[in-house]
Amino acid sequence: MNQDQPGAVGVAPVTLDDVATHAGVSRQTVSNVLNAPHRVREGTRERVEAAIARLGYQPNRAARALRAQASRMIGYRIEPVHEESLASIHDRFLHALADAGREADHHLLLFTADDPAGELAACARLFRTGGVDGFVLYGIDHGDARPAALLKVGAPFAVFGRTDSDSGHCWADVDNVAGVADAVDHLIERGHRRVGFVGWPEGSGVGDRRAEGWRAALEEHGLLADCQRLDAQTHDTIAAGAAAGAKLLDLSDPPTAIVTVTDTLAVGVMRAAQGRGRVIGEDLAVVGFDDTPTARVLGLSSVRQPIEEVGRVIVEMLLARLPGVPHQPQTAAGPEGRLLRPSLVARGSSAAPYPSSST
Amino acid sequence: MNQDQPGAVGVAPVTLDDVATHAGVSRQTVSNVLNAPHRVREGTRERVEAAIARLGYQPNRAARALRAQASRMIGYRIEPVHEESLASIHDRFLHALADAGREADHHLLLFTADDPAGELAACARLFRTGGVDGFVLYGIDHGDARPAALLKVGAPFAVFGRTDSDSGHCWADVDNVAGVADAVDHLIERGHRRVGFVGWPEGSGVGDRRAEGWRAALEEHGLLADCQRLDAQTHDTIAAGAAAGAKLLDLSDPPTAIVTVTDTLAVGVMRAAQGRGRVIGEDLAVVGFDDTPTARVLGLSSVRQPIEEVGRVIVEMLLARLPGVPHQPQTAAGPEGRLLRPSLVARGSSAAPYPSSST
Repeated sequence: MNQDQPGAVGVAPVTLDDVATHAGVSRQTVSNVLNAPHRVREGTRERVEAAIARLGYQPNRAARALRAQASRMIGYRIEPVHEESLASIHDRFLHALADAGREADHHLLLFTADDPAGELAACARLFRTGGVDGFVLYGIDHGDARPAALLKVGAPFAVFGRTDSDSGHCWADVDNVAGVADAVDHLIERGHRRVGFVGWPEGSGVGDRRAEGWRAALEEHGLLADCQRLDAQTHDTIAAGAAAGAKLLDLSDPPTAIVTVTDTLAVGVMRAAQGRGRVIGEDLAVVGFDDTPTARVLGLSSVRQPIEEVGRVIVEMLLARLPGVPHQPQTAAGPEGRLLRPSLVARGSSAAPYPSSST
Repeated sequence: MNQDQPGAVGVAPVTLDDVATHAGVSRQTVSNVLNAPHRVREGTRERVEAAIARLGYQPNRAARALRAQASRMIGYRIEPVHEESLASIHDRFLHALADAGREADHHLLLFTADDPAGELAACARLFRTGGVDGFVLYGIDHGDARPAALLKVGAPFAVFGRTDSDSGHCWADVDNVAGVADAVDHLIERGHRRVGFVGWPEGSGVGDRRAEGWRAALEEHGLLADCQRLDAQTHDTIAAGAAAGAKLLDLSDPPTAIVTVTDTLAVGVMRAAQGRGRVIGEDLAVVGFDDTPTARVLGLSSVRQPIEEVGRVIVEMLLARLPGVPHQPQTAAGPEGRLLRPSLVARGSSAAPYPSSST
């Protein structure tokens, strides 16, 4: 097995010191250009890079990984896009993850898998072979088997979302209760007294927490008894949202405002209302969740997740638990959880005061 | 410098042969489980993985990378999401890239950069340090400096899109001329004779080719002289699309159908038409480009890019040019270009025959 550095055949290998001497800078500066280039002024960086190119210096990442027993890679399974959903927060999340690792010279390693079992097998293989130092898991929910399985493998990881028992690992999540409660507060402020909710079937952590936000806000305003029967549960497609919206709108005493668990369902509710001759924002207020591009186009108010912050926090939590991350004050101990507050983006679908309150 | 394999301190390191003996399989099967697990039946894979875990075998990826002088990583810069655009083809493209490398045990390494210069600096560093074996470039257009710069660095790469001179490198692109021509054909088939176009300002390869598709199809049908002045050029926002749509609709002899260079501009055109009391799909036909989730919600006909195929083709072209990719029949020589045909998704915004043709 030949583990010599590439370029070392027959001649003495070029060293970091050679580059430093040639560029007229310190050893540390060369190291910074390689590992934390944003810390080096552009002129200096260019001089060092020219010296690296000229001398043919090869600070091989694999050799460094072997020495440090760290690949500086974070593994992440990218899931296929679900065509039925309007949500495209994945793009924003991936950019945030990749960007958060940049400062510490860590990169994101993307892989695909057919299902959660395939994901776990790929994780175990990547970790055991030193391909990654840890993982970020996406789309965690109640009953998810992945955290326990990764703990068993011994791989560091942090997750976006919560299972029913989060004690053993790091997580960050959006405060779904607060997000929907904010939407309900906003509608009540506009004069609505009958606020409905279209959610998912019980059993998903995300869906249950959003429904809880609706219930909690109504209770706080003393309106829960009036609105108790104004909710419907269905799966996440526009057609299902339209059916659920129709059910609520056809009640003898229908809601004047409806909050939904996703923009996808909100679009369905809007469709049902428009099919009944109602003008959105005047006869019926609607608020969705996710602030998708479609919400902007339709003037749909929506709860926006702080995805960029979630990505940054998750990577910070993970890096703090990896050995050998440079400029890390100290390795953090034990798991940690962080709940981040979403924000309501109010648009035409809910902005106007409800007529009965202004008379 | 200690380049011993992890786990080799004080005891003889566990070898591939030990694992094979313990699991009762061949050396090649163990290697397949590590490098091409999809080729191994599940029961066998589990047995081998159990043996790996039990013996603590560490087939270190960094050691393998040093031996093979190949990291099995493909570098890709992920760009921030532009909030004004409705297009979310990035998700689909990234999944396709990651998935295409899977068979050959190559993974995608994501990084971020502030601008194209920062991207090039990051590419040079990743390649020189052996962090990646090659790159995929996204969003290439006329005058893009990245291909020439990467050729200079000596890094293998393949790009999505075309510059003005594509002779030196591998590329795959969507046939934008054919895509828009298909949309125009479809509208003419429905009875339209005055077909307008809202595009981007001249100078972008993508925008110019889509405009060319409009012109070429009209010419083929002998309608170019009639439609010559029915085009407008603007930047890619909904508001700009509405202004351009208004300009065309307020002509003394306005178009009865409008094709746009993106769904974003199509939404603007629809807004302008609706503001003038026109019913989309009856008084005015509209066809966009990108088949975004918003197009599905609005019933907007749109040209769909074969993004999954683009991603697969690009990775295949790149892998065929990397040294040391397993199961590769032979290393391909010289650059190659592939043009892939998009498909029209016809919806309510253009499905009905134009009234004047049915009378």
